[in-house]
Amino acid sequence: MTNLLPQIKSPADMQKLSDEQLQTLCHEIRDELIRVLTNRPAHFASNLGVVELCLALHLSFDFSKDKDRLIWDTGHQIYPQKLITGRYEQFHTIRTKGGLMGFPHPGESEYDLFMTGHAGCSVSTASGLKAGDELMGRKDNHAVAVIGDGAFPSGIVFEALNNIGGMKQNTLVILNDNKMSICPRTGGLAQYFDQCRMTGLYQGSKRKLNQLLNNIPVIGGMAHSALEQFRDGLKAFFKDGMLFEELGFRYFGPVDGHDLPGLRKILRDLKSQEGPILLHVFTNKGHGVPQAAEDPVTYHTPPVFEQVGPNRAIVSFKKGGAKGYTDAISFALHQAMQDDPTIAVMTAAMCQGNKLEKVREDFPQRFYDVGICESHAVAFAAGMAKAGANAVVDIYSTFLQRSFDQIFQEVCLQNLHVTFLMDRAGLTGPDGPTHHGVFDVPYMRLFPNMVSMAPGDETDVQPMLKFALKHTGPISVRYPKANLEKVERTEAPTPIELGKAEVIDWGEDGCFVAFGTLLSNCTAAAKKLKAKGIHMGVINARFVKPLDKETILRAVETLPLVVTVEEGTIEGGFGSAVLEAANAAGLDARNVVRRGIPDKFIEHGERNELLADIGLSVDALVELVLTSRSAEVAKCG
Amino acid sequence: MTNLLPQIKSPADMQKLSDEQLQTLCHEIRDELIRVLTNRPAHFASNLGVVELCLALHLSFDFSKDKDRLIWDTGHQIYPQKLITGRYEQFHTIRTKGGLMGFPHPGESEYDLFMTGHAGCSVSTASGLKAGDELMGRKDNHAVAVIGDGAFPSGIVFEALNNIGGMKQNTLVILNDNKMSICPRTGGLAQYFDQCRMTGLYQGSKRKLNQLLNNIPVIGGMAHSALEQFRDGLKAFFKDGMLFEELGFRYFGPVDGHDLPGLRKILRDLKSQEGPILLHVFTNKGHGVPQAAEDPVTYHTPPVFEQVGPNRAIVSFKKGGAKGYTDAISFALHQAMQDDPTIAVMTAAMCQGNKLEKVREDFPQRFYDVGICESHAVAFAAGMAKAGANAVVDIYSTFLQRSFDQIFQEVCLQNLHVTFLMDRAGLTGPDGPTHHGVFDVPYMRLFPNMVSMAPGDETDVQPMLKFALKHTGPISVRYPKANLEKVERTEAPTPIELGKAEVIDWGEDGCFVAFGTLLSNCTAAAKKLKAKGIHMGVINARFVKPLDKETILRAVETLPLVVTVEEGTIEGGFGSAVLEAANAAGLDARNVVRRGIPDKFIEHGERNELLADIGLSVDALVELVLTSRSAEVAKCG
Repeated sequence: MTNLLPQIKSPADMQKLSDEQLQTLCHEIRDELIRVLTNRPAHFASNLGVVELCLALHLSFDFSKDKDRLIWDTGHQIYPQKLITGRYEQFHTIRTKGGLMGFPHPGESEYDLFMTGHAGCSVSTASGLKAGDELMGRKDNHAVAVIGDGAFPSGIVFEALNNIGGMKQNTLVILNDNKMSICPRTGGLAQYFDQCRMTGLYQGSKRKLNQLLNNIPVIGGMAHSALEQFRDGLKAFFKDGMLFEELGFRYFGPVDGHDLPGLRKILRDLKSQEGPILLHVFTNKGHGVPQAAEDPVTYHTPPVFEQVGPNRAIVSFKKGGAKGYTDAISFALHQAMQDDPTIAVMTAAMCQGNKLEKVREDFPQRFYDVGICESHAVAFAAGMAKAGANAVVDIYSTFLQRSFDQIFQEVCLQNLHVTFLMDRAGLTGPDGPTHHGVFDVPYMRLFPNMVSMAPGDETDVQPMLKFALKHTGPISVRYPKANLEKVERTEAPTPIELGKAEVIDWGEDGCFVAFGTLLSNCTAAAKKLKAKGIHMGVINARFVKPLDKETILRAVETLPLVVTVEEGTIEGGFGSAVLEAANAAGLDARNVVRRGIPDKFIEHGERNELLADIGLSVDALVELVLTSRSAEVAKCG
Repeated sequence: MTNLLPQIKSPADMQKLSDEQLQTLCHEIRDELIRVLTNRPAHFASNLGVVELCLALHLSFDFSKDKDRLIWDTGHQIYPQKLITGRYEQFHTIRTKGGLMGFPHPGESEYDLFMTGHAGCSVSTASGLKAGDELMGRKDNHAVAVIGDGAFPSGIVFEALNNIGGMKQNTLVILNDNKMSICPRTGGLAQYFDQCRMTGLYQGSKRKLNQLLNNIPVIGGMAHSALEQFRDGLKAFFKDGMLFEELGFRYFGPVDGHDLPGLRKILRDLKSQEGPILLHVFTNKGHGVPQAAEDPVTYHTPPVFEQVGPNRAIVSFKKGGAKGYTDAISFALHQAMQDDPTIAVMTAAMCQGNKLEKVREDFPQRFYDVGICESHAVAFAAGMAKAGANAVVDIYSTFLQRSFDQIFQEVCLQNLHVTFLMDRAGLTGPDGPTHHGVFDVPYMRLFPNMVSMAPGDETDVQPMLKFALKHTGPISVRYPKANLEKVERTEAPTPIELGKAEVIDWGEDGCFVAFGTLLSNCTAAAKKLKAKGIHMGVINARFVKPLDKETILRAVETLPLVVTVEEGTIEGGFGSAVLEAANAAGLDARNVVRRGIPDKFIEHGERNELLADIGLSVDALVELVLTSRSAEVAKCG
C-alpha cells in the first residue's frame, strides 16, 4: 500500500485503485518529484501543481496510441505523466544526457505526442489532432489541451480558440490557472482570470444573482447612471467565461484542481458534451511543498536543494555558481539605463531568466514584461523606437523566433533602431532542443539593415551593449547560457567598431575565427597547439553582419588553415558568411573549415557534454587542427 | 467647388470645408480611385470603404510629424490618406516602379509611419508609439490603430489588446468591420462580430433592456431553466463589446462608417476619454461602386477594368492573362485530393489568392481557411499530420514567415509530414517589399528534417507535388507569382527523386544551376550564349535541401564557370548551400558565381523590371557570363 507508484506501468493500472489509494499515489508522485529533483535543477513547482489534474485526465480518458489525444502546453509539467506511463524506473535520469527529457518526448512514449517547449501551440495541435482523427475515421476520439494561464495570452492560442469556436469542433481546452507565468503574469487577461477567481469558486451563483436583482432600484425607467451600475454589476457576475463563450466555447468552472474526485466527475460529464469546451481549473504551483507554493518563481526551476526537512520543508539551497553572460548583460543594461533616460526594455515573461529584476525595480516606467507574447514585444518595441525611444528587446534566442515576422516587417524593413538581446543563444543544456538557440545567426543575418554581433568574452559585453545602444538601426547581440570567461589578450582589447573583428593573435600556421563565446575554447585550443609547435592564431569576429572582410579574408588568403567556430547551426551561419565573402572576393576557400552545430536537433545534456559531442570542445578543436594539417601534408606529399 | 481634391495639400486644408464640401471631397476621392485604378490592378474595394473614416480621423486628430499617431493595419487601404497628404499629383504613379507604393511608406510622407503589408501589427505599434511618446515627453499625443475585421483574429492583435488592457494605456483601436477578410472571414470572432451587427446598430439599447427586464417572470426564486434563459438573454444584449471589455477596453459602437459627421462627433468625444478604447465601425467594402460593394472578393484587387459606365457601373473586365504557377499547383492539388482522401489543405485567408476555390467547393470537409492566422495554420496542420492525415499548408512565402516558430517546433522537431506550398516565393511585383517572398530559402533550409524544393518549370509542378505528398517528413515547395513556362529539353524530364537535380544540358564552358523558376531565364541565356559560341550548360537544381552534391559538385569541379541562380536572398540561400557543399568536399569554388536577390529591400515594380534591376534577367545573365569569361581570360593571359 505504501508503494503504489512502481506498480503503475500504464494509466490503465490506476483504474483499479480506490479514491484513497489514488490520494496515496498523488503523495508518492510528489515524493518522487522531490527525491529526484533534489539532486538536479529541474522544473519543480509546476509539476507539483498538476499531479491531481494529470491523474484525473488519465483516469477519465484513454490516451494510448491512436485513442484520445492529450497535449500539455509548454510541457515542463509533464513529469507526473512520465511517472504513470511506464517511465518510473528511468525517472531518475530526467534531464541528463541520454536520460528522459524534461519535456514531452514522442520518442519516449506514445503518451507524449508533441515536444512542447515553446508556449501556446497545444490548442492548435489538439484541434488538428481532432480534425485528423475525424478524417482518419476515429470519430470518437477526444482531444484535450492543457494550457497554463501564463501561456494563454500567446497570440496563437487566440487564433486557435477562434477557429475551434468557428468550427464548433469537439475540443476540450483546460485552462490550468495557477496565477503564474514563469514570472507573475501581466495583461488584461490576467485581471480577467483574477476576477473569475474572486467571483466564481466558492460563491453560490444563484444567490448572488438574486441579491443583485433585488437591489435593482426601478425596473421601468432607470436613469442612465443606474443603468450603467446595473450593467457593471451584471458584468461582474457574468464575467465567468464570457470571453470564451463569445468565441464559441462553453465555459465550465472554475474548479479546484487538487480535488481529484471532483475533477474526475466534471471530466466524465464533459466527455459526453458536444462542441468546444473550456474548463477553468485552479491549481497551486508548488502544491504539497510549502516553500514552493509560497514562492513559485524561485521554485520554477530551483537550484539543487541541500536538504528536505520534515513536512517537505526545504532547508536550504546550494550556493549559486559563477556569474554568467546574462548577469553581465543585465548589469550593463542597468548601468546604461541610468545614463540614458530614453532606454526602455521589453521582455516576454522572462524577467527572472533574463535577470532583469533590478531593471524592473529601478525603472518600472521603462520596463515592459508583455507576457509570452514575443510578436507583440517586437512590434511594440518598433513603435517605441519610431517615437524616439531607445528600445531594447531582451528575449531568449529560441523564443525570439516567434517574432521572426515582426523583426522583418516592423523593425528591419522600417530600419528602426531596436536592440535585440538574444539570451541563451547556443546550446542551453538540460532543456534540450526546444530551448537551444541555434538558428538565430542565419535568420538574423538574412534581413537587410540588421547588424548582428556576439561578444567573444566578458570583456566585450559592456562595450558591445554600449555600441548597440548608440547604433541607429536594427542590431542584435547573441550570448549563451554559460559562465563568463575572459580571454587572455597580450594587448588591450580593441574598441567595438561596426564590422570590425579583433585579432587576439595572428597565427602562422592558421587561425581560429570565433563568432561568440566559443572564443575561449579557441584560445585554449591554440594554447595546447602551441605546446605542440603549431601556431594557430585567434580572431574574435564580433560581427557576422557586417562581416570584417578585411581581417577575415586576409586570413583566408594568407594562412594555410582557417577554422570558423560558432555555437549555432552551420546551415547558413557564420562560417557560410565567411565562405560567401571569400567567394565574392574571388578567393580559394579550401583552407576554411567550418565548425558549428550540425544539421540535426541536439538533445538535452550539459552544455559541455553536448559541445564535446559535436566537435566544439577544446580537445575536438585541437584534434581538428592536427587532422587538417596532416591531411594537408598528405596532399602535398 | 467641383475640384476640391487638388487643393488639399495636407489634412489641415480640410478643416475649413463645410460638411457639404466634405461630402463632395469624398465623392472626388472615389472618382480619383476609380480613374487611376481603372488603368491598373490595385487594391480597390477596401479603399472605397474607408474614405469617410480616413477623413474623419484626419479632421479629428493631428497626425503630422511627432503629433498624434495613426497606423493603418495591412495598409492597402491607405490610398485616401495618400490623396489628402500631399500625394494627389503623384497618385497616378501608384504601384508602378519608382511611383507611390500601394501601402503606407514612411519615405513618401510623415503621415505614413510604418510599411504595413502583413496583418495585425498595428495595435502593437500604436501602443509602442504611445509608450514612446510618453517617454519622450509628448504625453498629449493620441495613438490610433485602424484594423479590419479580417486582420483582427491574428494572434498578435490579441497579444496587444491584452497588454494595452493590462496597462490601461490611452490607445484608440478602431475595428473597421466590413465583414470581409480578403476572403469571407471565418472563426468564432466573425460570428461574434455578426451578432454585434445584428443587435447593436439601430436598436435603442435602453428600450431593449427595459423590455428584457419587464419580461423576467419572477425576481425572487427563479427555476434553473428560467435563470439560464435569463442569462442567455442578457448575454445577447451585452454581447456588444463584452469581449473587449473583458480585456480591459471600453467598447463604443457599432457606428456607421460612412456617416462622416457622425464619425467626427464620436471621435471628438473619444479623444477626451482616458484608457484603452475600442471603436467598432461598420463600413462597406466597395462603397460607392455598386459592383464592388456587391462582390468585394473579386474587387479586392480586380484586373484592369475596360470601362466605367454611368453611376460608376463597371462594364467589363479585360480578359485574364496566361496561367501561372498558382493555377498549376492548385490544379495538381485538386487532382491529388481526388485520389487520396487523407489530404487536407490549410490556407490563411488566401483561398482566392491561392486559387483554392475549387478545392473548397469539392472538398469542403478537407479544406480549412483559418483566417489570417498562419501560426495556427501550421500547428493545426502538424496535429492533423500526427493523426495520420496528409496535411498541406498553402500560404504565401512572405506570410509563412509568421509561423517560423511552428515550422520549427510543431513540424520539423517532431519530423511530421506536412507539405508547405509556398506561393509567391520570389519578387511579387507591385505590392513591394512587404509581399516579396525572398527569405524562405535560407529559413526553410536551416531546420533539420526539412526537404526544400522548387520546380524549375511547369513540367516539374505536378510530379514535385506528388513527390511531396508521398514524402514522410516536412517538405516544402516554393514557386513564384509568375506565368507558367516550359523549358525545352532534348530528353524526357527525369522523375523527381530526393536530392536529385536534373541536368537539362551539360555545358563545356560552364553551366547555370538554377533553383526554381529562373531556370527559363538560364536556358534562354544559354541559348543566346550558344549563338556567341559559348556552351553554358543548365542544371535544374530542384532541391536545395538535400542538395544534389554529386551533380552540382561535379560541375564545380570540372567546369570553368558555375553560376547559381535563385529568386531569393543570397544571404544564406541556394548559392550559399552550394558553397557550403563545395567547401565540405574540399573543392576550390572560385569558379562559382552566385546570383540572387541582393541584401536590400526591393521596392515595388513589375517582376521583370525588378529582376532586370538586380541582374536576374536573361540579358544580365548573358552579360555576367561574358564578363566572367573575359576576366578569366585576362587572369590567365
